[in-house]
Amino acid sequence: MATKERSLENAIKTKLNEREAKEFNRIYYGREEHCELELKESTLTTCDKENIDVQAYKFYGATEEARKPRLTKIGLVQHSIVLPTDKPIKDQQEAIFQKVKNIIDIAASEGVQLLCLQETWSMPFFLCTQQKSPWISFTESAESGPSVMFLRKLAAKYDMVIISPILEIEEGVWWNTVVVIGESGNIIGKHRKNHLPSAPGSSCETPFYSPGNTGHPVFETKYGRIAINICYGRHHALNWLMFRLNNAEIVFNPCATLANFGEPFWHAEARNAAIANGYFTCCLNRVGKEHFIINTEDGDNVVDRSYFGSGYISAPDGTRTPSLSTVRDGLLITVVDLNLCRQTRDRWGFIMTSRLDDYAKELKEYVK
Amino acid sequence: MATKERSLENAIKTKLNEREAKEFNRIYYGREEHCELELKESTLTTCDKENIDVQAYKFYGATEEARKPRLTKIGLVQHSIVLPTDKPIKDQQEAIFQKVKNIIDIAASEGVQLLCLQETWSMPFFLCTQQKSPWISFTESAESGPSVMFLRKLAAKYDMVIISPILEIEEGVWWNTVVVIGESGNIIGKHRKNHLPSAPGSSCETPFYSPGNTGHPVFETKYGRIAINICYGRHHALNWLMFRLNNAEIVFNPCATLANFGEPFWHAEARNAAIANGYFTCCLNRVGKEHFIINTEDGDNVVDRSYFGSGYISAPDGTRTPSLSTVRDGLLITVVDLNLCRQTRDRWGFIMTSRLDDYAKELKEYVK
Repeated sequence: MATKERSLENAIKTKLNEREAKEFNRIYYGREEHCELELKESTLTTCDKENIDVQAYKFYGATEEARKPRLTKIGLVQHSIVLPTDKPIKDQQEAIFQKVKNIIDIAASEGVQLLCLQETWSMPFFLCTQQKSPWISFTESAESGPSVMFLRKLAAKYDMVIISPILEIEEGVWWNTVVVIGESGNIIGKHRKNHLPSAPGSSCETPFYSPGNTGHPVFETKYGRIAINICYGRHHALNWLMFRLNNAEIVFNPCATLANFGEPFWHAEARNAAIANGYFTCCLNRVGKEHFIINTEDGDNVVDRSYFGSGYISAPDGTRTPSLSTVRDGLLITVVDLNLCRQTRDRWGFIMTSRLDDYAKELKEYVK
Repeated sequence: MATKERSLENAIKTKLNEREAKEFNRIYYGREEHCELELKESTLTTCDKENIDVQAYKFYGATEEARKPRLTKIGLVQHSIVLPTDKPIKDQQEAIFQKVKNIIDIAASEGVQLLCLQETWSMPFFLCTQQKSPWISFTESAESGPSVMFLRKLAAKYDMVIISPILEIEEGVWWNTVVVIGESGNIIGKHRKNHLPSAPGSSCETPFYSPGNTGHPVFETKYGRIAINICYGRHHALNWLMFRLNNAEIVFNPCATLANFGEPFWHAEARNAAIANGYFTCCLNRVGKEHFIINTEDGDNVVDRSYFGSGYISAPDGTRTPSLSTVRDGLLITVVDLNLCRQTRDRWGFIMTSRLDDYAKELKEYVK
C-alpha cells in the first residue's frame, strides 16, 4: 500500500487537473502521458503485501523499414537493508539475498530481461564509517563470491542478464566493481568505478579502493549493448561520453547517494546524459535508513545514513519515467526499443557536430 | 499583467499547499524558497504596463574569512520581434532596438551589471527560411555594426557589461557571434558559436556560417569571469567543460530554441552544466511567434516559428531560479555571489576527481 511519503511526485499528484497534469508532464517527463505497462494481478498483490513500489512503463521507437523494433525489458531494483548493521555479517547478507530474490522472482514473472541492482547491493553502505574492519567480510571475488554465485543461479534460471554492483577483493586489494552476469549464469565481464568521492568526511571512498582501471567497457549482451557508470561517475560528463563513443545503448547508474547531497539534481544528471549521448540511462539508488555504531578508543560514535531511492529511466529523446519511491523498496520495469537510440542520434546530430578532434587536442594541451 | 499561459510553473502554482510547495521546490529548484529580491515600484509599474515578465532572485554564498562576497547582478532579457518580417529591415531593427532599450533602462534602474540578450537578438531568426537574401542586411561588424554601436552607448551610460549575440560579417564571411561589450563601451572580445545544428530541414545553420574558430575564451570583466556557450553548444558537454577549465565563473547560453525540439529538456541541460562544472549558468531563449513568407519560383512558402522563452539561472550548487514566461517578453534579475563557485567545487571535488589526463588519451585514441 502506498504510504504518504515526501516526494515531488506525491506533491503534485492529485493536485493538478487533467490539462495541468499534461502540461506538467510534457515539461517534467518530456511527454504528456506516462505510457504505463499493465502488470499481472499476482505482481500487484505481492508488491502490495510486501510494500514494494512497483511501476512499469514503455518507450517505443518509430517503425523502420529495414529493422524490426528491438525491445528489451529492463528492471531496476532498490531495496533497504534488512537486519541491524551489528548483526553477524553472514546473517545480514542472507537476509538481503532473501529480500532481493523475492523481487527478482517478481521481475522474472513479468519477463524482465536485463536487471540492475543498487550500488553494493548485498551489504549496508558501511564505507561511511570510514573503517575497514569488520566489513572486509562483505568483499568478494567478482567471479565466485557469494553474491555473485547467488545471482548466477537466478540469471540462468530466468534467462536474465543481471548487473551486480559489489565490493570486489582481488589479491587483497579492494575495488568498487560491477559484475555483468549473462543469461546462462556466465560472467560477461566486470567494470570498476572510475571516479571516487574524495571530499573530507564520511563520504570519502579513497581509503578503501582506487579509481577503476577498466576504462569504459561496453558489454554485448543478449538484450543490448550496455555499460555501467557507477554512482559518483554520473557527475563526470566524459565518463558518460566514453560509454557513448564505445557504442553503449543503455547505461546503468547504480548509486548510493544521500538526500542532503544529491537529491535535487538527481533528476537532471542521468536525464541530461541520455539526451547528450543518445542512449537510455537507468539510474537507481539505495533506499532506506542505515544506522552504524562505531567503537573507537574514545567511545562509541553513531553514523546514520538515509538514501532516497527515486530510480528512473530516461530515453535518448529526453523523455523519462516517473521515479520510484523515496522510502520504500521498489521495482521499476520498463520496455525500451533500442532503435530509439539511432533514431534520436540521426535526428539531432549531436555526435556529428561534436568536433571531438578539436577537443582531444584542447584537452591534451590542458593536461600538459 | 500576467496572462494565463502554458508553463510548468503555472501548472503547479496555486495548486500546492505550503508543505507541498516546499517539497516540490526542494527537488525541482534545489531549494525550498526562491529567495526573491525586492523590485522598485517603478519597475513593477513599467513592466506591468509593457507586459514584461520581471522576476528577481538571489544566490548567496557562505561567509569566508579571507574573501568578501563577490556579488554580481545579472540580467537576462527575452523579447519577441516587433514588426512583421516583410517590413523594411531598418524598420524592423529600429523597432527591436526601441523595445530592448526600454528593457535595458529598467535593468539599469535596478542596478544590473552584467546583461545578456538572446541569440541574434536584433532580428527575426530568419535562418529557418534557409535563404540568405534579403537577410544579409542583418549581418554586421562585431566592432562597429548598428546593434553593437547601439549597445556600446548603453553599456557606457549604465556602467554595464553587455553580452550581445549577433550575426557577424567579416570580409564577406558570416559568423554566429557574441560580442562582449565592456562597461565603458569598449569591446572586450568576441566568441563564435562552436557547434551548429546540422540536421536536414529548416533548423540547419551550416549553409550560413562555419563552426566557430575562437576556441573557448573566458573574458575577464569588471563583474566576473564570463564565457558564452551559444545555443546548440549546450548539448555538448565538452564545450561546457572547456569553459570551466579556462576558469569561467558564469557561462551564458543565449538560444533560439523551438518548443517541439528543446522545451522538455531545457530545464535539465544548463542546470546540469552548472552542477558538473561548478559555475553559474544563465540560459535564455527567444520568445514569441515569427512568421515568414518565402517567395520561391513555385510560389510562396510560409514558415512559422514559435519560441518558448523560459530563461533561468542555475547556481554551481544545483539550485536554480524559476523560469521566465513562455510567451511574454521578460527580464530575469539575479544577484549571485561568485564565491559560491569555489565553495561548491571545493566541497564536491568534481574537478579533482575528473581524471582528465586519462580522458585526453582516450579521446586522442578515439579520434585516430
